[in-house]
Amino acid sequence: MDLLKRTLAAIKPLDGEAMARAQARLDDLTKPPGSLGALESVARQLAGIRGEVPCRLTRKTHILMAGDHGVVAEGVSAFPQEVTAQMVLNFARGGAAINVLARHAGAELVLVDIGVAVELPDLPGLIKRKVASGTANLARGPAMTREQAVAALEVGIEVANEQVAAGSELLGIGEMGIGNTTPSTAIVAAFGGLPVEKITGRGTGIDDMRLQMKINAIRRGMEINRPDPTDPLDVLAKVGGLEIAGMAGVILAGAARRVPVVIDGFISGAAALVAVRLAPEARGYILASHLSEEPGHAAVLELLGMKPMLTMEMRLGEGTGAALGMTLVEAAVKIYHEMATFSQAGVSGALDG
Amino acid sequence: MDLLKRTLAAIKPLDGEAMARAQARLDDLTKPPGSLGALESVARQLAGIRGEVPCRLTRKTHILMAGDHGVVAEGVSAFPQEVTAQMVLNFARGGAAINVLARHAGAELVLVDIGVAVELPDLPGLIKRKVASGTANLARGPAMTREQAVAALEVGIEVANEQVAAGSELLGIGEMGIGNTTPSTAIVAAFGGLPVEKITGRGTGIDDMRLQMKINAIRRGMEINRPDPTDPLDVLAKVGGLEIAGMAGVILAGAARRVPVVIDGFISGAAALVAVRLAPEARGYILASHLSEEPGHAAVLELLGMKPMLTMEMRLGEGTGAALGMTLVEAAVKIYHEMATFSQAGVSGALDG
Repeated sequence: MDLLKRTLAAIKPLDGEAMARAQARLDDLTKPPGSLGALESVARQLAGIRGEVPCRLTRKTHILMAGDHGVVAEGVSAFPQEVTAQMVLNFARGGAAINVLARHAGAELVLVDIGVAVELPDLPGLIKRKVASGTANLARGPAMTREQAVAALEVGIEVANEQVAAGSELLGIGEMGIGNTTPSTAIVAAFGGLPVEKITGRGTGIDDMRLQMKINAIRRGMEINRPDPTDPLDVLAKVGGLEIAGMAGVILAGAARRVPVVIDGFISGAAALVAVRLAPEARGYILASHLSEEPGHAAVLELLGMKPMLTMEMRLGEGTGAALGMTLVEAAVKIYHEMATFSQAGVSGALDG
Repeated sequence: MDLLKRTLAAIKPLDGEAMARAQARLDDLTKPPGSLGALESVARQLAGIRGEVPCRLTRKTHILMAGDHGVVAEGVSAFPQEVTAQMVLNFARGGAAINVLARHAGAELVLVDIGVAVELPDLPGLIKRKVASGTANLARGPAMTREQAVAALEVGIEVANEQVAAGSELLGIGEMGIGNTTPSTAIVAAFGGLPVEKITGRGTGIDDMRLQMKINAIRRGMEINRPDPTDPLDVLAKVGGLEIAGMAGVILAGAARRVPVVIDGFISGAAALVAVRLAPEARGYILASHLSEEPGHAAVLELLGMKPMLTMEMRLGEGTGAALGMTLVEAAVKIYHEMATFSQAGVSGALDG
């Protein structure tokens, strides 16, 4: 609890003066003001986070949290629970989508077993920090104790702190956990006061019958647990998940250490909601990447007040959208530093300017 | 005219068998079927274009067409016409946004003077193929003769053919031309039968007064010229532009030589419309990149039946969105070739599969 408290206390607002300086340079680059849209706003945000737009993002790290969910007993997923562990092996061997896309983004992939149901062997790149062997079934009672939720947040903080200490300048988050759109939906419903059926989606691709089972499970979980939206730890513990808590911890650590964190889709969006409810200033350290196909994701981004840069109709998770988002952050850094200014290039300004 | 005719005749449908083979592999990769969205559909499309998904996109070329517009006399742009030539100099020196983003995408930048109003000096990377020193004012009569429109299309075909002959496996298009959202709007209005005021935007950032002048100029141009939507060359000549024709030529050449072409925003979208009206099968060779802030762009993509991958609120042109799109095409190629299959990875399939 101490680490969490210290981390929350260390989160400060963005550097407004640095953002104004960055804006002035952006407006002097050879393009109509604002015409590079998100590339400009990302550069400005990086300035607010780091105090200036970094010249390069030399070291980038994608942190993938894996955990299991007792709620799979309700038949909420198209895939069996053993796939979580199987996919961690696949990540360790380099064969999954996130391996390909993290390489594409030039990011190192860090795997964290924060709550996989089975014991995993020692694997290259795997950090073993299991808080529990999966959560309890949120449709029947609390998914986690408050202590477990805090422990999982602190695992995320520690892993992120280690990466930042090792020189990482950009963090990405992603997850693996069969069934984890179910707790994510419950979290979003709790914080947003949104009707469950409106934001419940098909996750990995469930049919109508399983979709109804999923909606029923989430509704029951909300009724039984009555998560208190004014108490983010209560929501996280009762209807959340270990890897969701871990990702929220990464965001909080990034915010405290002034390192930007690229979020992925619906599940990491739910983690971001937890983080900003715990520390509203953390919002400024989060970079949205894509809009996923999961119907609740647009609601999450709206609650966060963020716009996605990518609309790729992706719904895989693992942080695949975040990895693509990292390449756009990199592009924003290059735009800021490599473009000529109007005076350098001898280009006329606007007639009405 | 011969080159155009030969090119149009060489455009054939995508290879459906190759697409089916690619789909089978995509469905066997360790992810829920379809969960990588556009990355999967791009890979499938590349298979249809090339006969298989290329192992690498070794050589990528971004072709930037520059031309001027007589309609700037109507006060339709926030920037003076000399900016077109000034920006070509900026491109040649490497200081513009497209230089930065083409480098980011690993693409070579090819500049084409297809219709800049003034004489340009010899510049590194500049291909001088001026068809005319800008178009005539489309608000007072035809922007081009039919012969000029064909000549400009053929410049685009020739430049693209040269790049493909030199080994380019992926083409991107972009443009520079002060005032060129005006002819683009007229083209889209003509082909789509859309009301001018609904699809006219602020381009580089004009105020309300200029926006009204722009709408008036386009309306007058449509009334005076009466472009015939069933005759794409008539539309292109009467209300189009030289760089728009050049980009349409690049698309047609790409389709004829079975090389994918990544389009940019509103203006290259208008060029794509011209290309697919001339040769409907060309559509399969086009890859959409971003949704621009220009209000008519969504209408263009709808007319083309395409979805954007990026929503970056960009409105710069030059092909900046296409360059970012190229990086996503590259990611799709890597996903296809580098991911493990379910059997390789020992991962269980879906319960309901």
